[in-house]
Amino acid sequence: MTTATESTISQEELDQLCVNTIRFLAIDGVQKANSGHPGAPMGLASVAYTIFTKHLRFNPKNPDWAGRDRFILSNGHASMLLYSLLHLTGYDLPLEELKQFRQWGSKTPGHPEYGWTPGVEITTGPLGAGFSTGVGMGIAQKFLSNTFDPSGHGVLDYNIYAICSDGDLEEGVASEAASIAGHLELDNLIYLYDDNHISIEGDTVIAFTENVSKRFEAYGWDVQYVADGNDLEAINSAIETAKNTKGKPHFIQVRTHIGYGSPNRQDSAKAHGSPLGKDEIKLTKENLKWPLEPDFYEPEEALAHFRQSIERGAALEAEWKQKFEAYQQAEPEVSKKLVAALNKELVEGWDADLPNWEGAKDIATRAVSGEILQKLAPKIPTLIGGSADLAESTNTSLEEFGSFEPSEAKGGSWTGRTMHYGVREHGMGSVINGMTLSKAIWAYGATFLMFADYMRPTIRLAALMGIPSIFIFTHDSVGLGEDGPTHQPIEHLMALRAIPNVTVLRPADANETNEAWRFIIQHKTGPSVLILTRQKLPVLDQKKYTPATELHKGGYILSEAEGAKPEVILIATGSEVSLALDAQKKLVADGVATRVVSIPSLDLFQQQSEEYQQQVLPDEVPARLSIELGISSGWERYVGSNGAALSIDHFGASAPFEIILEKFGFTTESVVRLAKLVISDPKAARREIKELQTHGLHG
Amino acid sequence: MTTATESTISQEELDQLCVNTIRFLAIDGVQKANSGHPGAPMGLASVAYTIFTKHLRFNPKNPDWAGRDRFILSNGHASMLLYSLLHLTGYDLPLEELKQFRQWGSKTPGHPEYGWTPGVEITTGPLGAGFSTGVGMGIAQKFLSNTFDPSGHGVLDYNIYAICSDGDLEEGVASEAASIAGHLELDNLIYLYDDNHISIEGDTVIAFTENVSKRFEAYGWDVQYVADGNDLEAINSAIETAKNTKGKPHFIQVRTHIGYGSPNRQDSAKAHGSPLGKDEIKLTKENLKWPLEPDFYEPEEALAHFRQSIERGAALEAEWKQKFEAYQQAEPEVSKKLVAALNKELVEGWDADLPNWEGAKDIATRAVSGEILQKLAPKIPTLIGGSADLAESTNTSLEEFGSFEPSEAKGGSWTGRTMHYGVREHGMGSVINGMTLSKAIWAYGATFLMFADYMRPTIRLAALMGIPSIFIFTHDSVGLGEDGPTHQPIEHLMALRAIPNVTVLRPADANETNEAWRFIIQHKTGPSVLILTRQKLPVLDQKKYTPATELHKGGYILSEAEGAKPEVILIATGSEVSLALDAQKKLVADGVATRVVSIPSLDLFQQQSEEYQQQVLPDEVPARLSIELGISSGWERYVGSNGAALSIDHFGASAPFEIILEKFGFTTESVVRLAKLVISDPKAARREIKELQTHGLHG
Repeated sequence: MTTATESTISQEELDQLCVNTIRFLAIDGVQKANSGHPGAPMGLASVAYTIFTKHLRFNPKNPDWAGRDRFILSNGHASMLLYSLLHLTGYDLPLEELKQFRQWGSKTPGHPEYGWTPGVEITTGPLGAGFSTGVGMGIAQKFLSNTFDPSGHGVLDYNIYAICSDGDLEEGVASEAASIAGHLELDNLIYLYDDNHISIEGDTVIAFTENVSKRFEAYGWDVQYVADGNDLEAINSAIETAKNTKGKPHFIQVRTHIGYGSPNRQDSAKAHGSPLGKDEIKLTKENLKWPLEPDFYEPEEALAHFRQSIERGAALEAEWKQKFEAYQQAEPEVSKKLVAALNKELVEGWDADLPNWEGAKDIATRAVSGEILQKLAPKIPTLIGGSADLAESTNTSLEEFGSFEPSEAKGGSWTGRTMHYGVREHGMGSVINGMTLSKAIWAYGATFLMFADYMRPTIRLAALMGIPSIFIFTHDSVGLGEDGPTHQPIEHLMALRAIPNVTVLRPADANETNEAWRFIIQHKTGPSVLILTRQKLPVLDQKKYTPATELHKGGYILSEAEGAKPEVILIATGSEVSLALDAQKKLVADGVATRVVSIPSLDLFQQQSEEYQQQVLPDEVPARLSIELGISSGWERYVGSNGAALSIDHFGASAPFEIILEKFGFTTESVVRLAKLVISDPKAARREIKELQTHGLHG
Repeated sequence: MTTATESTISQEELDQLCVNTIRFLAIDGVQKANSGHPGAPMGLASVAYTIFTKHLRFNPKNPDWAGRDRFILSNGHASMLLYSLLHLTGYDLPLEELKQFRQWGSKTPGHPEYGWTPGVEITTGPLGAGFSTGVGMGIAQKFLSNTFDPSGHGVLDYNIYAICSDGDLEEGVASEAASIAGHLELDNLIYLYDDNHISIEGDTVIAFTENVSKRFEAYGWDVQYVADGNDLEAINSAIETAKNTKGKPHFIQVRTHIGYGSPNRQDSAKAHGSPLGKDEIKLTKENLKWPLEPDFYEPEEALAHFRQSIERGAALEAEWKQKFEAYQQAEPEVSKKLVAALNKELVEGWDADLPNWEGAKDIATRAVSGEILQKLAPKIPTLIGGSADLAESTNTSLEEFGSFEPSEAKGGSWTGRTMHYGVREHGMGSVINGMTLSKAIWAYGATFLMFADYMRPTIRLAALMGIPSIFIFTHDSVGLGEDGPTHQPIEHLMALRAIPNVTVLRPADANETNEAWRFIIQHKTGPSVLILTRQKLPVLDQKKYTPATELHKGGYILSEAEGAKPEVILIATGSEVSLALDAQKKLVADGVATRVVSIPSLDLFQQQSEEYQQQVLPDEVPARLSIELGISSGWERYVGSNGAALSIDHFGASAPFEIILEKFGFTTESVVRLAKLVISDPKAARREIKELQTHGLHG
């Protein structure tokens, strides 16, 4: 579609007009908000323009088109760059929203947010996150296309484009992910590096003098250099070359100028994080020959040119649909599976083969989870995962489905389903999120609970995006024993529960682990964190105790006080539940009516009605003892002012775990004594627990 | 010192005997514990032997000798390698302790622990930590020697030796630190890479195929390769070359064999994390011509050879003492400062210049902290720090003391005191710890509180080591406004308080910030975390309210209910304290006797006597409302069963902060209403707060 006006100016002039339209929308948006980052959009306008109008395959009227290319703005603070492009190319993001940049309830928050603004593929802002999550998107594309389109109809031949900044490249998570991407030969990644030589504290030379391109070559990336970030032809040609070069991910270093066009701010840290100000905007508009009025000016020719994306996008999707139909005809079986995967549909009886644990011997929940995974994998063809080099310890290999390795030289074909993330926990978290963003994959990753700390930023981003990433953490307490305090989580359980929209599940035995996986597979609105033991636990008799299906309520009365109203309630999670049951036996024998409550998920329990919570933990029974191998803070909500929390508020110790548990007071005798004390004198019980806290190494 | 027996065998035989002594002590230690990692010590014995007997300058009888070289076992799971060497070279670590490996209370825990075992310079285990912390040690050496020994007496000419594994090199934190080290030209780092081609999941080829040496060259390191990890001469020569090559950190890639000598385990992942087992130990002993009995065998010649370290160490320290005396004579002034620094002595009146805030206008606590730093820096010559590329936002530059940059080409001389960590939060944390381990430096680093998540593993290690690292986090709540939920901490305050032995301080105003810094500078047994606002806060009148010196108790009655016993207690921290005071005024006007408690540090408050805590928060006043812009979990300890916590249990939003605070219920009106409600009906108050929780973006 060519408009009348368009023909009156040269292509070169039109390009420049479009690029400057992006620049000034960003400048004006930041100025109006009196907050934001104008410099990066100004420097990157030509790069982004080239990507969006020359290469990126998208349909602004259907942001969810499965065959689309993905675009990531890893330097999320340049959000006005993305918002301007989304608006200009015809996404449902009216100019009015750009004028509401960073205002309450607008579609243009400070940093791009997935699920909130049409066309935003991923939430970015924390540097390194976009870069590394893109690697997971690349893995998803490779896996899905090689698995479901082996004859090469090209229904999932999309690329992942990203713009990233020096800050992204300084972050360790990007290093980890870059190494993974190189190893996996992800040639679907086309990353452009905004090499503007400026960091917030000044010239990058003050802290960042490594040879970036050499580093990326070392990771196995294909590296190109564009000397002028406003040279549209050079940018275009580099991307073209990247698209045609197979076998390696692509890194295009583009020398840009932050704040390009601003007479007093260009190439200066001052352009980074503050509005230009009215005077400088005037100077910049004059300098780039832009009308001083109105603000948010969109030249007709430029808008018309950008909006061609609508027609182009519709054509691309229509063409793809034909391709998809041909594929469906040629591959009736596998295409059905792909369609199901793209809708994340589960087959009937997906959980029918979960192990039956009746009469089973003591078994660690990590081992249980491993057995469950082997049963789920055949039924869920897009269940993919592995560990950060702890496969055997975390029981997370999908044994019958091979390793995910690339095609050439490394003996794979991108269709294996056991991921080898390497000792890269943070990168693993990003990769899981990237795969999950495909909306077709149940992606999981595992490590020891201690190293959840390395991954927190990615768990949080999954929660913020509301995507169902699956994080598995084993060796969940001092119960791991000899490895000692460097490996023994103490605060980690509560610290993970603290993140909004994260569902932490700590099953008490094999049956609760079954149910935890049932929950995880069906959960859609946020990440799940599965916490598993290293040590063996008894399998609770489902006839004697309340069945584990109650896990879905988060907490439940596992074992009721026989006869009368309970005098005391023991509340426990995970490995401490069987300890509570043992104590209950002795207490009952001593004539103390005792209820045992299992709370495998505090998060789910909190979501229950006040009535249900009261039923499980009634005000009428104020004597309560919580038992968990973690910190006490947070347990007061459940034990109340008249209860006590048997906890660990200090670091662990290196020794066989039975000895540690005894020293730390996690024995039947200790629980029985404390339970009785909490009935008569809760303060004394709390004092006694405090005295136990002197046994940790280093006090 | 040469013993009689020693002369009967060749040097080569003696070397081999010594190397195998290390191997079999490690093998037997792991076997006896029935837990641990034999493979790495077996593969690294020759490397470690060469370092300890040919290069490392240490005095086993004085592990704290300031002039010693430092040794880091970054792959801490190989702890038996280190314990064997410490024992053999004459540290206070008897053979009996090696036999107690991984047992309760022994000096030989699963992973090396700083402050617990003589000669252990740093706690390692979490991979990447040792590698990256060593960079901080290297910075400390450069800073201290260039600052206090400018004329080059060589009193602090020590090196930092490290052994690291593929896992260390996969970790992002090592990448970040390696980039910093290359930039800073830390030629005092001599790192040997245990290139054994084996990860836990199998051959490293499954996940780690990057060109490691090229990557390190890209960072600016000097790279060497040793083809045979048992070639003592080649290892020795590479280290010799490294010591003599200036201007770059040193990376020596040594091709080793995990489980060396074990017929069935060598070069296999099976050698990594399990005891060899009796049968395989027998085969290994036979293979390496080692007596089958006794276990823990130390050949006399080998022990004698190792124990020469005692004499050698004494001589080295004696020589150094002479050098130090000459230095003291030549440099009376600066040497006095160095001695003070090495003892971390503060000069009289070190805090005398802290700003007086009487009558000051509203000011953000980050700005306050910045002013304080400028006053402390002249008085404390080893106060050094900066930010992860957020200097201006976090107010952490030491303006009069220059940037820490290396000597050549980059315009520094390793004597500047403002660190430019780059956008490398995790690496920054490690570097802070490494500098702090010098025991001579007050090292700090800053970023936004959100990104504390990137640094948690390092904060935890500082806490576990019990060292006074200083972490500064600004932009501490949704009060940062427009940047939105990707940058707004919610759970971070509680999640940091959750780590044992961490003191989190969130001052309410300028005066509390003064006191927070007074605490931090004098605190010795663990890390401090200082939490500061982006937004301006009123400066509280020190005559009208309880003076801020009470901060050292963690919490205190800031403003007492006038006249009678309080009906309600408002508990607040940081920016919410002035909100509580505003509410108090209105409540008093409405006839409600209200106490306001400021708790700048829950950690310190918990350490007070039960009596003091009762005085501040007496059981007799059960109606309590806590006010904090963070999660509610954890506040129940203070508000009790009859109180309520005004909190945020969801993600934030992008908008001007005043609007966010209003929407989230953090207004005077809202606090007044809730305070009244909590007196009459705490459950209703909690319900009302829950209803407020629907205003977060994405529910």
